[in-house]
Amino acid sequence: MSLKALDYESLNENVKNCQYAVRGELYLRASELQKEGKKIIFTNVGNPHALGQKPLTFPRQVVSLCQAPFLLDDPNVGMIFPADAIARAKHYLSLTSGGLGAYSDSRGLPGVRKEVAEFIERRDGYPSDPELIFLTDGASKGVMQILNCVIRGQKDGILVPVPQYPLYSATISLLGGTLVPYYLEESENWGLDVNNLRQSVAQARSQGITVRAMVIINPGNPTGQCLSEANIREILRFCCDERLVLLGDEVYQQNIYQDERPFISSKKVLMDMGAPISKEVQLISFHTVSKGYWGECGQRGGYFEMTNIPPRTVEEIYKVASIALSPNVSAQIFMGLMVSPPKPGDISYDQFVRESKGILESLRRRARMMTDGFNSCKNVVCNFTEGAMYSFPQIKLPSKAIQAAKQAGKVPDVFYCLKLLEATGISTVPGSGFGQKEGVFHLRTTILPAEEEMPEIMDSFKKFNDEFMSQYADNFGYSRM
Amino acid sequence: MSLKALDYESLNENVKNCQYAVRGELYLRASELQKEGKKIIFTNVGNPHALGQKPLTFPRQVVSLCQAPFLLDDPNVGMIFPADAIARAKHYLSLTSGGLGAYSDSRGLPGVRKEVAEFIERRDGYPSDPELIFLTDGASKGVMQILNCVIRGQKDGILVPVPQYPLYSATISLLGGTLVPYYLEESENWGLDVNNLRQSVAQARSQGITVRAMVIINPGNPTGQCLSEANIREILRFCCDERLVLLGDEVYQQNIYQDERPFISSKKVLMDMGAPISKEVQLISFHTVSKGYWGECGQRGGYFEMTNIPPRTVEEIYKVASIALSPNVSAQIFMGLMVSPPKPGDISYDQFVRESKGILESLRRRARMMTDGFNSCKNVVCNFTEGAMYSFPQIKLPSKAIQAAKQAGKVPDVFYCLKLLEATGISTVPGSGFGQKEGVFHLRTTILPAEEEMPEIMDSFKKFNDEFMSQYADNFGYSRM
Repeated sequence: MSLKALDYESLNENVKNCQYAVRGELYLRASELQKEGKKIIFTNVGNPHALGQKPLTFPRQVVSLCQAPFLLDDPNVGMIFPADAIARAKHYLSLTSGGLGAYSDSRGLPGVRKEVAEFIERRDGYPSDPELIFLTDGASKGVMQILNCVIRGQKDGILVPVPQYPLYSATISLLGGTLVPYYLEESENWGLDVNNLRQSVAQARSQGITVRAMVIINPGNPTGQCLSEANIREILRFCCDERLVLLGDEVYQQNIYQDERPFISSKKVLMDMGAPISKEVQLISFHTVSKGYWGECGQRGGYFEMTNIPPRTVEEIYKVASIALSPNVSAQIFMGLMVSPPKPGDISYDQFVRESKGILESLRRRARMMTDGFNSCKNVVCNFTEGAMYSFPQIKLPSKAIQAAKQAGKVPDVFYCLKLLEATGISTVPGSGFGQKEGVFHLRTTILPAEEEMPEIMDSFKKFNDEFMSQYADNFGYSRM
Repeated sequence: MSLKALDYESLNENVKNCQYAVRGELYLRASELQKEGKKIIFTNVGNPHALGQKPLTFPRQVVSLCQAPFLLDDPNVGMIFPADAIARAKHYLSLTSGGLGAYSDSRGLPGVRKEVAEFIERRDGYPSDPELIFLTDGASKGVMQILNCVIRGQKDGILVPVPQYPLYSATISLLGGTLVPYYLEESENWGLDVNNLRQSVAQARSQGITVRAMVIINPGNPTGQCLSEANIREILRFCCDERLVLLGDEVYQQNIYQDERPFISSKKVLMDMGAPISKEVQLISFHTVSKGYWGECGQRGGYFEMTNIPPRTVEEIYKVASIALSPNVSAQIFMGLMVSPPKPGDISYDQFVRESKGILESLRRRARMMTDGFNSCKNVVCNFTEGAMYSFPQIKLPSKAIQAAKQAGKVPDVFYCLKLLEATGISTVPGSGFGQKEGVFHLRTTILPAEEEMPEIMDSFKKFNDEFMSQYADNFGYSRM
């Protein structure tokens, strides 16, 4: 009897081949334990509101009014909404053609794309064209759209940092392309060595792979490093020489927890370098409302900006975007609010600054608490989280533990993370889900658990870890960088 | 000099090959004219709120409160929100893990999926499992997800009704598959003849195509017909014999404007047929908040239900869904509200019924007005819009007009629609964007312009058409069915 199209054996191989560890084995086991009544601390996803972070008030007031425009005519509306939120809601409703229930332009509301362009100009000091900015249902969907344009088949390669955020590995295999890894140096604070890049490209080409694009995640996920301006210049020069498109994933640009390396966009560095390179390198930059101090993941709002992309290609990207009609309009308004927040003198300004600073400063403290907590544990080393939302400690597993993992049919870091979950309820993502060097093991947590819970979480981690290390202690050494 | 990845010539061919007429040449020309100040009536997209349809009040009150949960503690909240909306907002917030800003389960909030299953049970009288219901960012994204599982390469064919909604043709070519057309019979009120289906499959197989799935759109888009129970039974038996997955696009199930053929879901017919066929045919049914009397297109909310799909395949679909983290949570709440609207005795019940009945009855009148209006025009014949949101009149073009179109380098119906747009501002979609028989021409409009504007719109259409027919009148006959 012939197979039916949705029989497992008959499915598109690309679908079966892709993996997405962030919601993989650990997450599924944690969800089971949660259903059985165990208290689970989900540190597997950068999902701040799920871990108690409060939404910023002003944006929610504006979008709440946009969802219920009839409130604007209610005589009592001023009793529960501030005047500047009411004015802003009227502004955004005027940018739509029929409110939040109408499809917008498939590229997003022109008025919001203009606000994004103005934000980029203020940030970078260079012009930005709203016609080259597309709003998307989250940055992830934008990345998928662009990779779909770039990948033509298995022989097309995409340079991706390792450790990497598995959106890239999953999407590349879903589209039938090839991931070309370039390794970040843990001993160099996850720095990037251009020679290493050249080796990766040369090796890929020797295997008949056409390397087409390069991904950078700045600040890094899961590794948390902030790229220096010099590093970005080197990368842009490399992309120019190799004629690669640079995909700049900059979704954590608000999440900076040190002052030595502030965020600088790839767009700004490219423009600073001047012609000919500033007109030569094809660059797509991604941003989102899901991260930063907004954390509005569930709204699914993002954008990408295109630099040096030929007009005919922009038309093709527009055509493909139009197939799904439009991104959700509610999240487009969140994006407009994020790039043009309340200004000094606005009624809601003080509250907005107080709330956003409060979140950012707490994240900064939690980054430090978690790094120090991990570094206090036996056989654990952890680079400081300079940016983004994650800690990525290296766990130096004793060979007895590695042996036990093999017997259990598990990758060693999955083995460790499952034990951690069962013992403490802390649900993490094994480093193998992000890629790591052979024989080196990590796990990723977010720095998002509530600040007041952090000491207890780190204590319970330490207790588990040190008992684990004793249980599997042996004299034959540990996995090591 | 080698091409760069985002140079037009170097793009993924599948991206370049796909077409999406709904936002194609006519839409782009209409947008230009609008920018030049011309009044445009956009009848190209089923986008009710953009044409003045008011959103239903109760759902907007609930989602507005969910976006601003701090309002629930405001002593004045009862002055502008009814008690049942407040209670419902608390209910939906309790189903989330962190409110609308937190990613949900990649399949959608379990609590909402349960409400969808209960809706399907009430509608069909058969059990529905929430674990086999996935919420999506609109039905379109769900269709794309499933087609991505089914299509493995160019030799995989998907049976699609012609005329069809170009989401299918665009997605099939974007995924590198092959569209296998089956023609609906305009003279039989767009009915479907199973023999015609067998011919299409046989012909495709003769060209080495593996036909994997069949799409039905019920009620039809753009053709507006409602499938009879007998028709659906035939289709299910055909899919069983040919071992095809049936994709049931049922997004217009609320939009029914006649009483002879009420909506009946493919799921119900399949279950009514009993074993073995009820356990044999793989069926995916799609629904949305964008259509019906909700028209909440911009929210991007939808679901698909899986019937007879193997568990391992469900896991693969879940894995791919998790790559983009989660559908937007705000629209998931709209979906919950749509499947469990206010009940008799609820404070908002009367208002909800008054509003929804008002919209549906007006749509019914507009369907009749438009059909009669087109049928009053020279050389135009139009089947009654039994369901959905569109009119699809056949325009019998004089050969002189066909000649003029060729000279202008245009497909004849595009030529006609561009002239219509320039003369009247009515922006339609040429029939060629949906597929039609050789030498037969149509255009699609929506029935969504405001009821009070409809007479004037049909008059200006008639004036244009009759002048056009006189201008290009000749003695050599017309394009004809």
